[in-house]
Amino acid sequence: MHYPTPIAKLIESYMKLPGIGAKTATRLAFYTINMKEEDVTEFAKSLISVKRDLHYCSICGNITDEATCDICRDPHRDKSTILVVEETKDVMSMEKMREYKGLYHVLNGVLSPMDGTGPDDLNIASLIKRLHDDEVKEIIIATNATTDGEATAMYLSRLIKPAGIKVTRLAHGLSVGSDIEYADEVTLLKAVEGRTEI
Amino acid sequence: MHYPTPIAKLIESYMKLPGIGAKTATRLAFYTINMKEEDVTEFAKSLISVKRDLHYCSICGNITDEATCDICRDPHRDKSTILVVEETKDVMSMEKMREYKGLYHVLNGVLSPMDGTGPDDLNIASLIKRLHDDEVKEIIIATNATTDGEATAMYLSRLIKPAGIKVTRLAHGLSVGSDIEYADEVTLLKAVEGRTEI
Repeated sequence: MHYPTPIAKLIESYMKLPGIGAKTATRLAFYTINMKEEDVTEFAKSLISVKRDLHYCSICGNITDEATCDICRDPHRDKSTILVVEETKDVMSMEKMREYKGLYHVLNGVLSPMDGTGPDDLNIASLIKRLHDDEVKEIIIATNATTDGEATAMYLSRLIKPAGIKVTRLAHGLSVGSDIEYADEVTLLKAVEGRTEI
Repeated sequence: MHYPTPIAKLIESYMKLPGIGAKTATRLAFYTINMKEEDVTEFAKSLISVKRDLHYCSICGNITDEATCDICRDPHRDKSTILVVEETKDVMSMEKMREYKGLYHVLNGVLSPMDGTGPDDLNIASLIKRLHDDEVKEIIIATNATTDGEATAMYLSRLIKPAGIKVTRLAHGLSVGSDIEYADEVTLLKAVEGRTEI
């Protein structure tokens, strides 16, 4: 016996999401059947909407539903600092900190020779263009602490430094609340190297 | 900073699904942004479709997109046996066995005084009506092996027996491939009681 077509199709769609296999997809599909009509309609509408109404901010590459993003439009942000991240998600993480008041630049990826991602595939040209603004004093590179992230940081630093702008990188070290016992050797080394006076 | 409205709404929708919290919903929403346009459209359409095109089979209460379900319409099924289950999902599980050739009846729930579910809330009246068909010789009660499932089985058995129809219940015992060491006492007791000659 097969599932009725509408369920089979919904299961297939759920299975396209990351981390959702056949069993979970089936459970979700059957759950959907019993959800409130308006909730399901709302769900379908928002799916369509994220594809139709979202695009990249023309200045920083963040995701937005307007021409430029909230942050680029905000007159209270400090225009002298640009924090460079890999993904929009990273902007959200930084904003949760509630301390950083500068601007962002989203690369929408990371240099990765293995995946064939070169500088032209990333949002780098527009970053270089932003450096012409005399207000920009510092670029903070906040790519992930992975091999590709580090390589991208090095690449950007060499590209930006000739323009006479300060380039910084997020500190490496122990996570707050973590045990030294469980820290890996490289992190420990970075924590010792980057020790600060107290 | 807030997420742009389309993302915020999609996160909210994903969070309404069972077992999906804020973090997973956010991850799924950002994944959706980068999904293929046609996959997302298909997803939205199937959501709408399960609410619009599915209803209960007028004979057995199974979920179907036609007036009656595949199984009730199948002329090759054995009309003398009706297997009673709690949910449509249980029909699918039984069908996976590929051995049972009779019909089904889906209660769409289980008697549960705690949740205030009484006989009138379940698909029981239509089961009793099906007993008038002289072809019906046996009702196999396959409600879950939970307290509520057992109570429902007892209730149905008392209701059906006066009609002179054989009522049976699925066997309790050890799962195939399981260790006796890990079986609970009640299951072991049932397995001993229901022992068969070899």
